[in-house]
Parts: sequence; structure tokens; C-alpha cells
Amino acid sequence: MRFDGREKDELRQIEMVPGYIKHPEGSILITVGDTKVICSASVEDRVPPFMRGEGRGWVSAEYAMLPRATERRNIRESSKGKVTGRTMEIQRLIGRSLRAVVDLEALGERTIWLDCDVIQADGGTRTASITGAFVAMVIAIGKLHEVTPFVKFPVKDFLAATSVGLLENGDTALDLNYVEDSAAAVDMNLVMTGAGRFVELQGTGEEATFSEEELSELLALGKKGIQELVALQKDILGETAGLIGGAED
Amino acid sequence: MRFDGREKDELRQIEMVPGYIKHPEGSILITVGDTKVICSASVEDRVPPFMRGEGRGWVSAEYAMLPRATERRNIRESSKGKVTGRTMEIQRLIGRSLRAVVDLEALGERTIWLDCDVIQADGGTRTASITGAFVAMVIAIGKLHEVTPFVKFPVKDFLAATSVGLLENGDTALDLNYVEDSAAAVDMNLVMTGAGRFVELQGTGEEATFSEEELSELLALGKKGIQELVALQKDILGETAGLIGGAED
Amino acid sequence: MRFDGREKDELRQIEMVPGYIKHPEGSILITVGDTKVICSASVEDRVPPFMRGEGRGWVSAEYAMLPRATERRNIRESSKGKVTGRTMEIQRLIGRSLRAVVDLEALGERTIWLDCDVIQADGGTRTASITGAFVAMVIAIGKLHEVTPFVKFPVKDFLAATSVGLLENGDTALDLNYVEDSAAAVDMNLVMTGAGRFVELQGTGEEATFSEEELSELLALGKKGIQELVALQKDILGETAGLIGGAED
Amino acid sequence: MRFDGREKDELRQIEMVPGYIKHPEGSILITVGDTKVICSASVEDRVPPFMRGEGRGWVSAEYAMLPRATERRNIRESSKGKVTGRTMEIQRLIGRSLRAVVDLEALGERTIWLDCDVIQADGGTRTASITGAFVAMVIAIGKLHEVTPFVKFPVKDFLAATSVGLLENGDTALDLNYVEDSAAAVDMNLVMTGAGRFVELQGTGEEATFSEEELSELLALGKKGIQELVALQKDILGETAGLIGGAED
Amino acid sequence: MRFDGREKDELRQIEMVPGYIKHPEGSILITVGDTKVICSASVEDRVPPFMRGEGRGWVSAEYAMLPRATERRNIRESSKGKVTGRTMEIQRLIGRSLRAVVDLEALGERTIWLDCDVIQADGGTRTASITGAFVAMVIAIGKLHEVTPFVKFPVKDFLAATSVGLLENGDTALDLNYVEDSAAAVDMNLVMTGAGRFVELQGTGEEATFSEEELSELLALGKKGIQELVALQKDILGETAGLIGGAED
Amino acid sequence: MRFDGREKDELRQIEMVPGYIKHPEGSILITVGDTKVICSASVEDRVPPFMRGEGRGWVSAEYAMLPRATERRNIRESSKGKVTGRTMEIQRLIGRSLRAVVDLEALGERTIWLDCDVIQADGGTRTASITGAFVAMVIAIGKLHEVTPFVKFPVKDFLAATSVGLLENGDTALDLNYVEDSAAAVDMNLVMTGAGRFVELQGTGEEATFSEEELSELLALGKKGIQELVALQKDILGETAGLIGGAED
Repeated sequence: MRFDGREKDELRQIEMVPGYIKHPEGSILITVGDTKVICSASVEDRVPPFMRGEGRGWVSAEYAMLPRATERRNIRESSKGKVTGRTMEIQRLIGRSLRAVVDLEALGERTIWLDCDVIQADGGTRTASITGAFVAMVIAIGKLHEVTPFVKFPVKDFLAATSVGLLENGDTALDLNYVEDSAAAVDMNLVMTGAGRFVELQGTGEEATFSEEELSELLALGKKGIQELVALQKDILGETAGLIGGAED
Repeated sequence: MRFDGREKDELRQIEMVPGYIKHPEGSILITVGDTKVICSASVEDRVPPFMRGEGRGWVSAEYAMLPRATERRNIRESSKGKVTGRTMEIQRLIGRSLRAVVDLEALGERTIWLDCDVIQADGGTRTASITGAFVAMVIAIGKLHEVTPFVKFPVKDFLAATSVGLLENGDTALDLNYVEDSAAAVDMNLVMTGAGRFVELQGTGEEATFSEEELSELLALGKKGIQELVALQKDILGETAGLIGGAED
Repeated sequence: MRFDGREKDELRQIEMVPGYIKHPEGSILITVGDTKVICSASVEDRVPPFMRGEGRGWVSAEYAMLPRATERRNIRESSKGKVTGRTMEIQRLIGRSLRAVVDLEALGERTIWLDCDVIQADGGTRTASITGAFVAMVIAIGKLHEVTPFVKFPVKDFLAATSVGLLENGDTALDLNYVEDSAAAVDMNLVMTGAGRFVELQGTGEEATFSEEELSELLALGKKGIQELVALQKDILGETAGLIGGAED
Repeated sequence: MRFDGREKDELRQIEMVPGYIKHPEGSILITVGDTKVICSASVEDRVPPFMRGEGRGWVSAEYAMLPRATERRNIRESSKGKVTGRTMEIQRLIGRSLRAVVDLEALGERTIWLDCDVIQADGGTRTASITGAFVAMVIAIGKLHEVTPFVKFPVKDFLAATSVGLLENGDTALDLNYVEDSAAAVDMNLVMTGAGRFVELQGTGEEATFSEEELSELLALGKKGIQELVALQKDILGETAGLIGGAED
Repeated sequence: MRFDGREKDELRQIEMVPGYIKHPEGSILITVGDTKVICSASVEDRVPPFMRGEGRGWVSAEYAMLPRATERRNIRESSKGKVTGRTMEIQRLIGRSLRAVVDLEALGERTIWLDCDVIQADGGTRTASITGAFVAMVIAIGKLHEVTPFVKFPVKDFLAATSVGLLENGDTALDLNYVEDSAAAVDMNLVMTGAGRFVELQGTGEEATFSEEELSELLALGKKGIQELVALQKDILGETAGLIGGAED
Repeated sequence: MRFDGREKDELRQIEMVPGYIKHPEGSILITVGDTKVICSASVEDRVPPFMRGEGRGWVSAEYAMLPRATERRNIRESSKGKVTGRTMEIQRLIGRSLRAVVDLEALGERTIWLDCDVIQADGGTRTASITGAFVAMVIAIGKLHEVTPFVKFPVKDFLAATSVGLLENGDTALDLNYVEDSAAAVDMNLVMTGAGRFVELQGTGEEATFSEEELSELLALGKKGIQELVALQKDILGETAGLIGGAED
């Protein structure tokens, strides 16, 4: 048993509040244990310069934390005048993951901006951001679809993410919180589709290494967690969920 | 009557949720109509270099908006690599206003960081930030007081802020929302104490000017609004409210 | 009596040297006591991108100090790689104030750049900048008018600025110099038109507050000072002064 | 067969020139096909501020490309005034990977700086950088050891990296060059130790996904490639290779 | 004869107003034709970190132009967020030149900051800056000497600068103004001491080249101009001039 | 005799490896003693915005050092977020020098980018960069000429650079290495054409001065060195050398 009473294959309590803020085309507050992220999806009717005229869309993500989302206050990146390496890595990961399940041709020349703002952090902020951003994006695309139906709904499959890891004591565990994550020997982020295919797999030994057997065990835990997250996404999305991966008309 | 049905001297609906995020020493979600700001107060046990060794404390504020707090998405200041003039002006205003009711000697060599993060904007974000930051700050100082009571509680008076303005049609109005504010000829921000004294008074003609009579009318409206805001702050702060402005032991 | 021998309602010695530098369309050296500012007005035959094609003009201001304008040398903002919050606040104030008396439609698609460079500082640099920039701007617009007369002269009224404050001893005073300003409990900048209407009113308690009575007294002092400044501007501008606020032909 | 004639499990031609530049404590020019990277290791007798006094060392990496290392000229990051997200991600990966095989306690309070400068790029620059930086680092640590032998040689195991991927046609392949990499559906970077344990595993679907079976096949290819790279490192390092992973005296 | 009526070996009209601004330890307004530069010298009682404890002083220069010093308005370097290459080159030149005639040991652990701010530009701003900065510096050092006499006055010789060039028509000319300079084939800046020795010699063909004979002719013109400038500096400095290059007591 | 055994008028060992990296249109590794610079020339089929439509080309240079090109590791300019004054000065010098021998009209609306990346530094990196960049540029222009012959080959003359100086002991010397350069009283960089005309002449006293006689001696040494460098360039360029300075067809 883990120090917060969970089993090794047990996710933290998840909650999703769609429409949490009013201006974005899609928005959600996702809560994973004590981690809380506001995910918003904004639709812009053009693509970045290097893609113009190709008839394809784009999905771009940004990630940030409030200064006091963490136990100690962090200096704002705007005050530092630059975005840290960690933030860049996370926002590139979120964007790339979401693009793997979006049919950019079907989307047409539009950009979906995904803003993931962590208001409270307790581990797993990047995976909560991906899981939440997917829902916000589907809500936004669903609204476009209501006004002018797409020939083919541009979302090909569900997408969720979680972390798994090798704890200090050598146990494997699903969905690490901050205390577990800080002490873990190996930390792995998994992004998978509803159909169970990998989108991203990032395993990192923190001054440590791992074997093929440990890898297999971690992947099994992650897969289980992601199936549960996808089930929750379906509940939240309701009817719009039915459009995902639908055949072309 | 105003387009949202309010009287000219009527504030929007106000709500304050203390303890909205868990890590800061003091935090609150303040809602003023459709404007929502997370205010957090962080205590740091040292002061900026230029003040060290003087035995006085400091209060510093930062302000930001989520990119999609507004109707159109704004580029993050961290992506731009710099803080805009508008943001700097607002955070200087918040810090200066709060310092006017803090007894920096009584506080001792500590910095209170006030972070005001607008998650949804509909006009009046800077005044909502001041009103909310005051509450977050008093909660944080109240917690310090519980552990090691101050000889003199370092908050001298209540502090709240609101806006008043001359609408397009020439009417004066209290607590402008975004639609009113964008079209207003004159926009005035007022920061006042519980005792009804001015802390900041910033009146600006937007390609327009105003007379002394109009000024008097605007000040009267603002005063009424601030008294109502201070009453709400007292409710939220409960017992801690009683420590404010208290005599030295 | 004040430490430099002035009465409480007495401005410092003012001097204005028009044409101080040769390249700008309008320029002036304004001296207010020991504060000296070079104000120049440059005319550009286009407006910022967001305003193109609307047939309106724009007025934009920049403000800076030489490193040794002050008693202690300041690091250049170009060396720091960014403009400070104080500078941004001041240049936004100057631009906004000037725009309040310019008829942007009558000006046509042009930008007037106002550069206010403080070569010697002794308090009141932002108000001296506004008073001087107004003169430089009128000279520049006057020159345009000589070449191709405007249907309506695009300056609607005179504009000047001064500061008033509550000194350490509780006295009110007009046109604070640096020593008075540093110690003042309340500092207020006033920008008013020739007709006596307010354009900007910025009163700030420096770790202090002020009452409605004090406000009234400060406004009266400021009004008197601005009337004197406007009279000086008329002298300097000579015939061009007669065009200001003139009826449409 | 691949378009350059290689088998799917065949590395490109590898060459390593130790001592390629004279000033660094360790340096190497590594050539992998047409990819060429200068790796240098610099020893600094102190650690970053947040680690001082703990008796542990640190390993930090930086990565850059000459502007014309690529087919089209890239703008220098120094001209842009910032490091791109891609560069940050790569240098964080290199540093983290190397630290996994370094005994930071045994190293003592020193920083090893690893500079990986790509002078010619043809795919796989980050994995060539890791493989080369390991050799440069061992040379540098070996020189320290000659002067003042470590109680325990601070390098715990060999370390090398390569890429594997799913090509456009669905085939798996080892050590992708630029043409293969640009068109690949899945791109995976593997960092492994001499003992065959994982250090980093980063698999990314580029607007694509992959199954568990594909993952297994990719891991097998990668493992084979890394064993060959480690064998080459042993040759280059000669006697110093024998110190790696050695028991404490 | 040149288009402004000067002979080829004739300087423009020179004027120097010492004490032009009140705060710096030394200041001067230097006018060379229509070029006007405010030079100020500030004394700081410490040296840059890399020189501390060596008992030697330092001389550092900064150079800037007001935005409208030139015929067309320039964007401020503070707005651009960086200092241009041209500015850096000039301020490095000014600092290096002045240091050649200062005895840094005799100066002791102090920094002299020389600020050269061009308020009106008409060619030759860098050479006017050097000639003026020398006078401002000697005034500042002279004041230090009055309070606490130096064992050896730390200025070893006079220093002045001018430009010479090959005009479009092939003629050589002394002290080029902006019109001449823009069209010149070769532009050369000369910094020399009172004793006629070279400190800096920077000759540049602007898409052109020059012969040894042309070089000799240019050097002769420059030498003549510098002797005249040094004579003017002596006049301005009065008694303090006598201390320069003086023997050790 | 100098400490490395050279005569005062003796260059260090020079080597040039053309085609050192494969992507640029022209590239070379130039070795001057222990100084090694990769010079590459990239052709872009357009010119900077301010030159468009004039039918003239442009030549632009960038210069950088690997962090460990020097004895002590330097912080990367990309990490600092800005290019230093020294780098800017050098890249401006390289570009200006090369433009002096290029017929920009004959080149047509193209930019030649010259990247000089120092991989090992031992003094004279800027002059080695100019000498090498000239060769890389001619190779690149030669390739253009093969495809579509120029009416007039756009390179007017050979161009090479070297340094000369006054050593600590008062001797003059050609082609200073790092140890000589650090201690030299006077350092002079000379850029000359194949025909023996000056392009740039930059002599600098390092807290020292020099006489006309010393100048003459330095120029003679420099001239000799440059003639030898030009002879080497001719050898490397082979047939292409014959096109330089050729008459119009």
C-alpha cells in the first residue's frame, strides 16, 4: 500500500468541470488528486505562416503554472523574461500528443490553441494537462461542428495520459503524486489512445536505470490507468464523444 | 438603468472563496460579476536586498491574466519575453495600495508576495485584485499571528477598490463591466480605506476630459461601493477582521 | 514658507527654449527649477498597423533620462535590456494626456512621436514633459499647417501638467521639487486643459492616505499652477496659439 | 533494404577522433554517417550554487548546431537572443543521461560541462552527442584520476544512444538518417548502459501511433545498436575503459 | 573648397560648455559644427568585480543618441531591448581610448563612468564624444584632487579625436560632417595624445580601398586637427590642465 | 627570435581544407598555428528588406566561438541571451571587409552569408576568419558561376588579413599568437587586397600609445604577411582564382 492508501494500480480521484471559464470555445477544470489544471481551447481561423495555403490545420499548446501553484513560490516566467526548458518540453509534448489524434486535413486551415494553466500542483501536471486539454479541444471542435458540420469529424480517437514509476522502495506505481515523484528512481509518462496505441512514451531514470522486465510492468500499469481516464472523458463529453473516430460521411 | 439592469450606484454580484488553493499562506478566489481573480499571499522570511537590516517588511504584487481570460486570446507575457506596460502599471498600483495599510515596521523583515491571476476578465480586474489581495494578505498575516503573535497587528485598516466612470451617454456609474468600460469617456479607479480615506485616485479621460462637478459625483459613487466591499471583507475574514487597526498591546 | 523660499502655491522658475534641437519638426528645452527636459515632436506619415485605413492619426510618447540626470548615476535601460515599469507608466501617461486634446480625425493618418528626454532631474519630470511636449507638438502641427492647412486645426485645447502634494509637515504645496517629493506623504499629478477640465488625476498615498478635504485643497493649488503654465505656453507659441481650439472653417 | 543500402538493423559508419581540440580536458569528434559532432568535456572545480557544500558533483550539457550544419542555414540562437525549445530538450536529455552513469558522490564537488556542437547534421545528432559526450567525459575524468586517483572511479557503466523508428513504409529501422527520420511515423531515442539497462526511452508518434508489438521490435533493434556502440567506445578509451564500473578500492 | 566653405584641413566650429548639467562630478556640452554631445563623468568608489583588490581603477564609457538627434527618428535601444553593434563598438572605443591616458594605479580603486549622449548629430559623434569625455573626466578627477590630492595626478597626457576621410571626389578632408561622411569612400577615426602619439587608428574603406600614399595624407590632416583640439581643451581646463602628465611628487 | 622560434616577420603555419563541411555552397577549415576556424558561405536568393528591388547583392558575416575553443570555457552567447560587443565588432568587421572586394551589382539580388565558427582559438581568430571566409565565398560564387555564368565575376580582388603588434619588449611582430597578443602594447589588424591596398586598418594601444615610426614598421610587416596569405589562397582556389578581378566580357 502507498502512503496515501492507494493500491499500486490505482489512480487518484479525478474530476472534470467543463465550461469552467466562459470565453474559450472549450474549457475544463481537471482535478487529479490535488493537481488542478484549467485547460482551455481557443479556435483561430488561420494557421502559422509556414503552413498557409496547404489546407491543413494545426494544434499548438502552452503550459504554465501560477507562481504559488507549488509549495514554494516560483518566479513567473514573464518576470524572468524567458520560458524555462521544462515548460518548453511540456508544451511541445502536449501539442505533439494532441496532434496525433487530430486529422489536420479534416480540421481545415484553423489553429486550436490549448492553454494548460496549473493552478495547484501535486505531481502529474503534464499528464493531467494532456487528459484535460483533449476534452477542452473536443468541446471546441464539437461547437464548430454544430455550426458548420465537418465532412469528417477531425478527432480520430480518444487520448489520455498518466505517469507510472519505480518508487524509492523498488515498487511500481500508477499516477505518482508529488511526494512519490520526487523520490522515484524511474519516472515514465505515457500518452495513449482510446484504442490502446502509444502516442508518447517517455521513461527517464533519475540517476538510475531500469530493466526490460520493469518496463513491461510499468507499461501494463499505465495502460490500465489510461483506460479508466478515457472512460471518464466519454462520460464528460456525452454525445460529442460519439463523433470521435467516426467514419467519413 | 444600465444595460445589465443595474442602478448607477450598484456593484455587481461579489463572491469570495477563501482557501481556494492550498499551498499559499493566504488565498482567495474573488468574483465580481464575470471577473474572477485568484489572489494568493505568500510569506517570505526576508526582504529585498535594498531593505535588509532595517527591520521593516515589504509587500510586493504581481498580476497576470490567463491567455484566454479575455474574449480574444492574448499572447502570454512569458512568450513575448517581457511584461507589458499595462501589467507593470497594475502590479505597481496593487503593491503601493496594499503598503498604505500595512505597518511595515510591525510586520518585521518579511516580504508578502501578492499574486493576482485573472482567470476570467470582464472589466475591473485591477480593482478586484486589490480587494481580493487585501483579504488573502490578512489571512496570511493572521496565520503568522496565530503562531507568533505580533506586538501590534501589522494591518492598519481595511482596503478595497472599485471603478467609477462617465459612460458614453454622459451618465456616471459604479463598478463598470467590460462593455461599459470600453466605451466610457472617463474611467476612474479608486482605492480607499475602511475609514473612508483615499489611497489612490486615478482618473483618466480616454480622448476626453471631465469637470470638477463630474469628479465630485464620481467620488461619491466610489465611496459608496467601497463601503459595501469592506463590509463583505469583514464577513469573510470573521474573527481576524477584529485584529485590523487594533491598538498596540 | 518652503525650504527654497517659495509660497505653497508658487511654481518654480519656468523657461522654454523652442527649436532647441534642429532635426525634429518641433522641439523645446523646458526648464522647471532644476528639472530640464528636451521635448521633441516627430511627424511620421503613417499610423501603427492596428489603425491603418481608418483615417485617424495617433500620438505616441517616449520618456527617458540620461544616466546622470540624477544625483546618483542610473543604469541605462538599453543596458538593462528593458524599460522599467516607472518609465512605461510615464510614457503611457504622456501619450494619453496629449491625445485628450488632439482631434485625431482632423490630424489624418499621421503619427506624432513625442520624445521627452530628461537631461537634468529635480522632481516633476513627468509633468514638465507633458507641458513641454504639448508645445513641441503644437510647433510641429503648426508647421504641417503652414504647408497644407488643415480644414480644422487638430489641437482642441491647451494642455499642461503639474504636481501637488502633502508635504511631510502636513502642508499642501504646488510643484514639488525632488527633496519635497521624496518626503511627501501624498503626491498628485494633475493634467488639465486650458479650459480647466481634468485630463488625468493621479493621487497616490506613499504609505499614507488622504481625506476629501485635503483632496479639494490639492486640486485648487494644481488648477492655479496649470493656468500659469498655459499662459506661458501661449507666449511661447505666439501666433500658432491662436489656431488652438479654433472653429472648423 | 534501405535507400542507402543498409539492413534494418545496421548502424551507419561510426568514427571517433579523441583529442580533436586541444583546450578541453576531454574532447572527441564523433562521426555517425554524415552527422559530425564535436564533444568536449570541461572540468570546473565547483558545483552550481544550489548544490554547494553537499560533497557531490554535477554533470551539465549544452548542445548547439553551426548555422550551416544543416541543408538550409539556421539563424543562430545567439542572434535570436534565446535558446529554442528543441535545444533545451536535447541538452536536458544529454545531461540527465550522463548523470545516470556517474557516481556524483565519488566525483566530488566538481562540475563536468559537456559541450556538443554539431558541425554537420544528417539525423541522430542528439544520440551521437550522448555517445560522443560519454567518451569525452571519461577521458576528462581519466585525466583527473591520473593526477589524483579517485577512491572509486566515478563512472559506473558505459553509456550510448541511438535512434530507432517506424519508417513511412511500416518497416522498423535502426539509426535513422535525416531523410528516413523526416518521413518516419514513429521516432524513438534510446539511451542504454553497457549492461543493457534503460536510461532514457523516448518514443514519439509524429501524427501517428504505435502498438506494443512495434515497441518490442524497436527496442530489440536499439539494444543491438547500442551494444555495437559500446564496443567502439571501449576500443577508443583503451586502458581507461577498464576503470569504468570498477569496484571500490 | 568643401560644400560648407571649409578648407580640406579645417575643423568645424568647436565649442565646449563645462558644467552643463549639475549632478555629475564633471560635465560638458561639446559642439562640433552641428554635432552636440553631453559628456558627463561620474565617479564611483569601486571597480568592477573582476578587478577588486588590485588597487587599480577603471574607466568605462557609454554612448547613446536621443531618438531625434538625427534627421530621421531612430528607435530607442531601450525599446528594442538591446544595444546595437554600432553603439557597442563606439562605447568600447571611447573607454579604451580614455584608458590609454589614465594611470589606473594612480587613480586607485575607483571607476570613472563616461556618458556621452548625442543630442544632435551631424557626423563625427564618436570623435566629439572622445574629445568631450576627456575634458569631463579631467574636471571630475580634478575635483577629487582638490579634496584629497593624488600623489601623482592620474592623467598622463591630453587626448582628442577627429575624423579624416577620402571624399567622393577623391579629395582628402579633415573633420567630416554627415553629408561628407555618408558619401566618403574611406573614413578614418584618429585618437591621439597631446604629445602626438597614436592611441587608436581606425581606417575603413566603405566598399572601397586606399593606398599607402592616401594613408599618409590622411594621417597628416588628422594630426593637425588634433593639435587644435588639444589647444582648445587646455583653454577650457584652465589651471587643471597644468596637472596633466605632471611628475610624481 | 620569438618564444615559438619564429622570426618577427614570419607567419604561423597555415592550412586550408576546402569543402570541410558538406551542406554550405562554400566551406573551408582554416588553421593558423593553433587557431582553427570553420568558414562557410551560404547563398540566399534575396537581400535584406532595406535593399530589395535595387538589383544589388549583400554580404553578411557572423562569428562565434565554441565554448571550449579557449583555454577556459566561455558561456555561450545563446545562453546569455545576447551577443557580446566583441562578437558584434568582429562580425561587422568581417562583413565590411568582404564587401570591399565584392561587386555587389554584379552579384545581383543575393545575400552571401559567411559563418566563421572558431573551434580552437590561439590568437588572430578575426583575421583567420577573414582570410578563410574569402576563400569560402569565392568557392560559393564560383559554383553559382558554373551554373549560370556572371557577365562579370563579382569578386574584384583577393582579400586577406593578419595582425601585427608591438610586443611587451618593444619589438614589432607579425601574426601574434594568444600569448603574444595578451601582453602586446599595441595590436593592429590589417585587411588588404591582393593589389596591396588597405581595406581596414585598426590599430589599438592597450593602455599604451605608438609613434608614426612604429606605425610604418607595423604596416610593412603586415603587408608582407598578407602577400603570403594571398599566395596560399590562389593555390587553394585553383582555376577559380583566375576569375577574380577579371574584365567584363
